[in-house]
Amino acid sequence: MSDTQDLDLHRIRITSPFWAQYQALVRDVVVPYQWQALNDRIPDAEPSHAIANFRIAAGLEQGDFFGMIFQDSDVAKWLEAVAYLLCQQADTELERAADEVIEVLAAAQQPDGYLNTYFALKAPQERWSNLAECHELYCAGHLFEAGVAYFQATGKRRLLDVCCRFADHIDGVFGPGPGQLRGYPGHPEVELALLRLHEATGESRYLELARFFVEQRGTQPHYYDVEFEKRGRTSYWDSHGRDWMVRDKAYSQAHAPIVEQRTATGHAVRFVYLMAGVAHLARLSGDETKRQACLRLWDDMVERQMYITGGIGAQGWGESFTSAYDLPNDSAYAESCASIGLMMYASRMLQLEGDARFADVMERALYNTVLAGMSLDGTRFFYVNPLQTVPSIMGGNHVYDHVKPVRQRWFTCACCPPNIARLLASLGAYVYTQRDDALYVNLYVGSDAEIRRDGARFTLRQHGDYPWQERVELEILADAPFATTLAVRIPDWCARPRLAINGESVEAVPRKGYVHLQREWRPGDRIALDLPMPVLRIGAHPSLRHAAGKVALQRGPLVYCLEQADNGTDLHQLALPANAGFELQEGNGVLAGKTLIRSEGLRVAPDTAGGLYRYDAPEAAVQRQPLLFVPYFCWANRGEGEMRVWVDAAGSGARHVA
Amino acid sequence: MSDTQDLDLHRIRITSPFWAQYQALVRDVVVPYQWQALNDRIPDAEPSHAIANFRIAAGLEQGDFFGMIFQDSDVAKWLEAVAYLLCQQADTELERAADEVIEVLAAAQQPDGYLNTYFALKAPQERWSNLAECHELYCAGHLFEAGVAYFQATGKRRLLDVCCRFADHIDGVFGPGPGQLRGYPGHPEVELALLRLHEATGESRYLELARFFVEQRGTQPHYYDVEFEKRGRTSYWDSHGRDWMVRDKAYSQAHAPIVEQRTATGHAVRFVYLMAGVAHLARLSGDETKRQACLRLWDDMVERQMYITGGIGAQGWGESFTSAYDLPNDSAYAESCASIGLMMYASRMLQLEGDARFADVMERALYNTVLAGMSLDGTRFFYVNPLQTVPSIMGGNHVYDHVKPVRQRWFTCACCPPNIARLLASLGAYVYTQRDDALYVNLYVGSDAEIRRDGARFTLRQHGDYPWQERVELEILADAPFATTLAVRIPDWCARPRLAINGESVEAVPRKGYVHLQREWRPGDRIALDLPMPVLRIGAHPSLRHAAGKVALQRGPLVYCLEQADNGTDLHQLALPANAGFELQEGNGVLAGKTLIRSEGLRVAPDTAGGLYRYDAPEAAVQRQPLLFVPYFCWANRGEGEMRVWVDAAGSGARHVA
Repeated sequence: MSDTQDLDLHRIRITSPFWAQYQALVRDVVVPYQWQALNDRIPDAEPSHAIANFRIAAGLEQGDFFGMIFQDSDVAKWLEAVAYLLCQQADTELERAADEVIEVLAAAQQPDGYLNTYFALKAPQERWSNLAECHELYCAGHLFEAGVAYFQATGKRRLLDVCCRFADHIDGVFGPGPGQLRGYPGHPEVELALLRLHEATGESRYLELARFFVEQRGTQPHYYDVEFEKRGRTSYWDSHGRDWMVRDKAYSQAHAPIVEQRTATGHAVRFVYLMAGVAHLARLSGDETKRQACLRLWDDMVERQMYITGGIGAQGWGESFTSAYDLPNDSAYAESCASIGLMMYASRMLQLEGDARFADVMERALYNTVLAGMSLDGTRFFYVNPLQTVPSIMGGNHVYDHVKPVRQRWFTCACCPPNIARLLASLGAYVYTQRDDALYVNLYVGSDAEIRRDGARFTLRQHGDYPWQERVELEILADAPFATTLAVRIPDWCARPRLAINGESVEAVPRKGYVHLQREWRPGDRIALDLPMPVLRIGAHPSLRHAAGKVALQRGPLVYCLEQADNGTDLHQLALPANAGFELQEGNGVLAGKTLIRSEGLRVAPDTAGGLYRYDAPEAAVQRQPLLFVPYFCWANRGEGEMRVWVDAAGSGARHVA
Repeated sequence: MSDTQDLDLHRIRITSPFWAQYQALVRDVVVPYQWQALNDRIPDAEPSHAIANFRIAAGLEQGDFFGMIFQDSDVAKWLEAVAYLLCQQADTELERAADEVIEVLAAAQQPDGYLNTYFALKAPQERWSNLAECHELYCAGHLFEAGVAYFQATGKRRLLDVCCRFADHIDGVFGPGPGQLRGYPGHPEVELALLRLHEATGESRYLELARFFVEQRGTQPHYYDVEFEKRGRTSYWDSHGRDWMVRDKAYSQAHAPIVEQRTATGHAVRFVYLMAGVAHLARLSGDETKRQACLRLWDDMVERQMYITGGIGAQGWGESFTSAYDLPNDSAYAESCASIGLMMYASRMLQLEGDARFADVMERALYNTVLAGMSLDGTRFFYVNPLQTVPSIMGGNHVYDHVKPVRQRWFTCACCPPNIARLLASLGAYVYTQRDDALYVNLYVGSDAEIRRDGARFTLRQHGDYPWQERVELEILADAPFATTLAVRIPDWCARPRLAINGESVEAVPRKGYVHLQREWRPGDRIALDLPMPVLRIGAHPSLRHAAGKVALQRGPLVYCLEQADNGTDLHQLALPANAGFELQEGNGVLAGKTLIRSEGLRVAPDTAGGLYRYDAPEAAVQRQPLLFVPYFCWANRGEGEMRVWVDAAGSGARHVA
């Protein structure tokens, strides 16, 4: 069976009204906007200089390097997104722009294959001297991902060849041999990228190099200390008096060998990028120890450290995990990029395990945090995705410095916008998983996918308007009958799914969350899947104190929230009675086409007269107030205001004497 | 009428079992311990070097300055505490130690009167060049307070003369005249100290200098900018790349003239020290505009930014205020020193206004945050006084970096321990306020106070075991009858006080919180005040979201809390039913003699089986669990554990459909 981690995006066409709109947004707004940003043509945005850096390194322009040490990766992510768009439809102008950038990159590549504008322009003598802090391998990884994607999209090898030369160079520098460095990246990414490069080229050295990086990580003597001493104890961040990235090895998941780690720790994006690579490697190399580490660390993340929105990384400090059951709603980090990385980790776990629990989390991250990272018009972005905001207090309390109440246009550290673009443009790759035993249907995304398996070729056509509508249909388009197994996912939120084939009910008995349908399929066969989407009240684990006495609403894969625009200020005064009914209604204005939830509710407001504290806690005035919930991914599209996902549960038995 | 802000502590002897114990602790444990610490004789504590700095500056020892830029103030605060102890009882050895230190200070004073060891030893050319950041006037202020206190305690002028020479020097350097600096301290303190010095010496220049500092503050062109430019834009904190103290003028309450300020802002200790001085100045100079500013800023602080424990400063960043109704329980700062400063501000407001609302807050701060700042055995201290702690998550989440789950022995920045010592040692000064219209009884502290007013001399003897017992008696000891007005405070928490004079009921009709008893008093007269102390459920203002749906318990002036030691972990699962009864019980072990509160309670704990989130929020299992509350000031005396002041209100009408 051919590996389809990098499912050829030529072969899937997304037709879902929900997703086609997003992909059009990426094509028409996000990618063009980012092109302008990368070229510094947007007056009111923070400067990028990313293209200029490459042009200067290529000798095409005079000037100095400017930007973050990983500024190069913004260009790579843009190229990767362009590649995915080109798979969807031809676009001569876009392709020409990309080709021109690729020529600049090629010209900037040094004779030995090395390619990084920060080091080429600012510190040529310091190459590979500070892996803990300096993102050289991270940028290489993004470049490799772009090179693979662009090759697969266009068949053009120009960028892929640049990547291979660079990878060959890296393969010479790093390794267990004499004179080679024993290092590995402070920010993982190159591991998963090398495995993609390996799969695209068939070059086994790239797999071995990825394995080296993974297995070297966290061993003693510690490489970060070794290189720290070797370079004279300097830190890239010296101007700020900080070498904490060197000292705090858990920040980079380098405090212990991965197979010995027990908890999801450190910078959340680093963690999921790393684990995506490890999971891929575990599968390609059939390594059970690594597989167990992937399962163990996944479980710790998902069962103890993940927000209901699929966000991870509970604190601004180090954009990192904190500890079990510590998920503050208002000071959350929950970076958009971390949820994208979580999807990447999940998709590798799906290939490894064929278990829907990974798809459940992938879907949760996608429909909530990842989508919330971008405004509905595609022009503004969140880095940080809190579950509760009160703008009036955010200016005064520095605990919220990293949290923004409204999305921003561009960032000095612009990792999230291009990452959201490449994720949305490549969404098709997450819909299905090809495994020996079955074709797994992970996501319900209206689409036509050309599938080749078990000697057959067929098109699997998904109908429906998920996530709004309950009915999904899968139609078989083929020239002839064929036998194969389709594994249809029953989402974890769906208690009573109904399945029918050609109108005949089929008992839906999932195995690891998928109903395996093994039969001879005929052209025109239709699988109808009804996924009833009642509004669900979500409760939390008893140790999650930030959700104690509260509920969140979910319908289908969408988590909902209250916003000030609909419900007024002081959202903490609102409560949802245990017996409240729910009514769906369609939004309007910027929320047109979105399904909102209306319910009875209460506003519990003690008298405002008097001071902060009142003796013999007077019975609070309780007024009925209807509540209107909007999908979390739609929040903050109507100006600045309060927002809250977890809502007080009123009159719940949980609050009564037993 | 003689001003009694600095009530002669010789004339009040505290007999209260509660407070005599604390004063003995200060005498026998805290002050001796601090003496050892200041002399670096405690092996397991962070070094102080404060005495050594003075000895080096005096030429008595070789060495370099070590410590914070305000290290000198630790010695001054110790001397001030010693002075108060010497008022209570003679102690030849202690007095000799103090006299020796004073000789060192005098020897360290420079010929022109200047006295500051940091600048003398490290940067003699930089005197008065960085008022925004460098604490020279702050240290001077603490020295003046010590000088006044020691003079009043012992009659010895040695330190007072040192202070006057230094104050005269400062008076020459600063002022509106030609060649004088227009500056004022980044950390207020010298204002209130100069007013004490003025009252002790009768020197009006010290009052005028205080007025200059107060009125200059926040004017344009801004002095912090002027001196910043003048010294070449350097920052004391340059090694950390920070000049934020210069830029963030609200941090020092220097963003606008004080009379124009509308909200309590910036570093909380700075704010209350400053306002104590302003209130004192407003009274001495009869300045109505300053009085209005004092009232307005007091109200903003107390009605919108003060914890129920009398803590102020809701964030670790800048140890500062945040904004209205933002009082997070777990990431609070609520510095011990800020509550001490709050008491100082309150005592000045009492003199200015004769209004018990200031005494109510003073008492709240004293019995809760200030006392909580020290362990029951007097050996360990809190800087930060949170209202909720969960030690298991504090290591992982850097939002809690400033919060400690257990008290520490000494601090690099050792402001709080000596500040608590001097406050407790001088508690007698807060018990009464002498005003023209009456002798105000602010605090119920068993004591004998010799009072002189309206031509009479008498002793007012307080009986009782406040804050545990409800009955307070005031007995008149005198040689002859005399007429005067006693104003007896009815605490805000007491709904049904009963007052009797010599066994005869008197109607208790308070005016501004005090019952004014004007009569001819005879020797042996007894005022009996019954202050019923039911356990009160405190509710919060509807905008205080951190207390929404929660209650706190208070009995008398004491706020209570739940601790893990009595109630197990996961305190967020505990709830107090609306109809729960309360029973008092005496503590044991380290809590012997303390009144605890037992009540019915609930533990609301959803099943631990399953992941973080559960669909259709299963009815949580609710078990009855008796709750045991301990006084907040006693918390963290039994090892590390969870603590919580605000407790979920279960089954309250507030949570029901109206």
